[in-house]
Amino acid sequence: MTACMLVIGNEVLSGRTPDRNLNHVARRLSELGIELREARVIPDDEAMIVAAVNETRARYRYVFTSGGIGPTHDDITADSIARAFGVGIGHHPDAVAVLRANYPPEMLNEARLRMARIPEGASLVKNPVSHAPGFRVENVYVFAGVPAIMQAMFEEIAHELEGGAPAESVTISCFLGEGAVAERLRAIQEEWRPAVEIGSYPFYRKKRYGTSIVFRSRDPGALGAAAASFRATVRELGEEPVEGEVA
Amino acid sequence: MTACMLVIGNEVLSGRTPDRNLNHVARRLSELGIELREARVIPDDEAMIVAAVNETRARYRYVFTSGGIGPTHDDITADSIARAFGVGIGHHPDAVAVLRANYPPEMLNEARLRMARIPEGASLVKNPVSHAPGFRVENVYVFAGVPAIMQAMFEEIAHELEGGAPAESVTISCFLGEGAVAERLRAIQEEWRPAVEIGSYPFYRKKRYGTSIVFRSRDPGALGAAAASFRATVRELGEEPVEGEVA
Repeated sequence: MTACMLVIGNEVLSGRTPDRNLNHVARRLSELGIELREARVIPDDEAMIVAAVNETRARYRYVFTSGGIGPTHDDITADSIARAFGVGIGHHPDAVAVLRANYPPEMLNEARLRMARIPEGASLVKNPVSHAPGFRVENVYVFAGVPAIMQAMFEEIAHELEGGAPAESVTISCFLGEGAVAERLRAIQEEWRPAVEIGSYPFYRKKRYGTSIVFRSRDPGALGAAAASFRATVRELGEEPVEGEVA
Repeated sequence: MTACMLVIGNEVLSGRTPDRNLNHVARRLSELGIELREARVIPDDEAMIVAAVNETRARYRYVFTSGGIGPTHDDITADSIARAFGVGIGHHPDAVAVLRANYPPEMLNEARLRMARIPEGASLVKNPVSHAPGFRVENVYVFAGVPAIMQAMFEEIAHELEGGAPAESVTISCFLGEGAVAERLRAIQEEWRPAVEIGSYPFYRKKRYGTSIVFRSRDPGALGAAAASFRATVRELGEEPVEGEVA
């Protein structure tokens, strides 16, 4: 089960706004046993959105987008998704009803009603925060860019995603540089490939250099054995392994 | 002048590590008048790195990568870049010399020496933090993933990037919802397209909803006129425009 995330917005590429959605989606997908294989940040540009959506929806089981579904002129994601799927777009009656139920009539102007424009054939994704819905077309989920809304929309649909067994992970840290453990770690990786994926991440804490090693696997036995080998390695090198990250 | 950033690392896609490099590069490129058109996050997977590098280096003036050039088994960026360019890879004498000058001989094991493996024909990028260099092949700059090192490497090469006139930007905020200003803002965008790019970003501060509008242009006259139209719009709607973001 694989996925791709498309972060849509000029503001992320200009540096105005740091993206906060990718890490959230990445962590939630890991918990659900879905492998996020790729993410892209692209501008509010119809041709680029269409190309990215069509390339990634063919390659991955799920595609999630964030951004560009508000009421202003730069919100072109819904139209671009319709173009990518070659379908029309119009005011979805259920989306209009949600907006009518939540905005006073004098506020529900043409611009806000644009938020009810949904590609034909899409199903709506509830927005429990500010009401204007997201939507799904086939395997593409279209969410808002505001992090609180994006996260709420994700939880609305999380139950319908097909996940695998989530990978378990064990993290072991030590006050040894990456270079000091690298050769033995390579041997451990070779012994346990492909059941265990091993990542190595240097840190600097308490005025000392160190390394955190993350072991990930869907096989608890292999995971435990690989981690045990590394604990022994750290002790052989004269240090005490630390379970987890070093705070 | 366009650019693409490739963030390389399983840890970003699994959610373990939030990327901190993209926003930094985005802001620096904006200052240098270079347009970051796209960014991708991809795993430590040779085929995916090769495909992404070859696709983006043909499309954009500059490609910047972060991650995967350390001493451990999961650091495969240098080999993947060599593969993408169809060149060999070996220990670069200047890179070996830098490592020898900065590591005691007993520490300079085979794993650490791997950090001197550089694709043929590449030029080195100095690493003033931890010494193991980055490198450049044609229009592709290869940086470390640790933010302090990535940022330092970027500054080492910033002077050699060809930028355009940086876009100037003006931000005006107001305590009006996006939907309240959207129609008039669309008219302002239509009047000033393509000289001025206008982005609209909702916020919630001091228990009130509001909107920040960012005007970006290389034409100071058009920028000032578009921003002035929006200030007048806010006043017509009964609010006072706020210069900049609302803290």
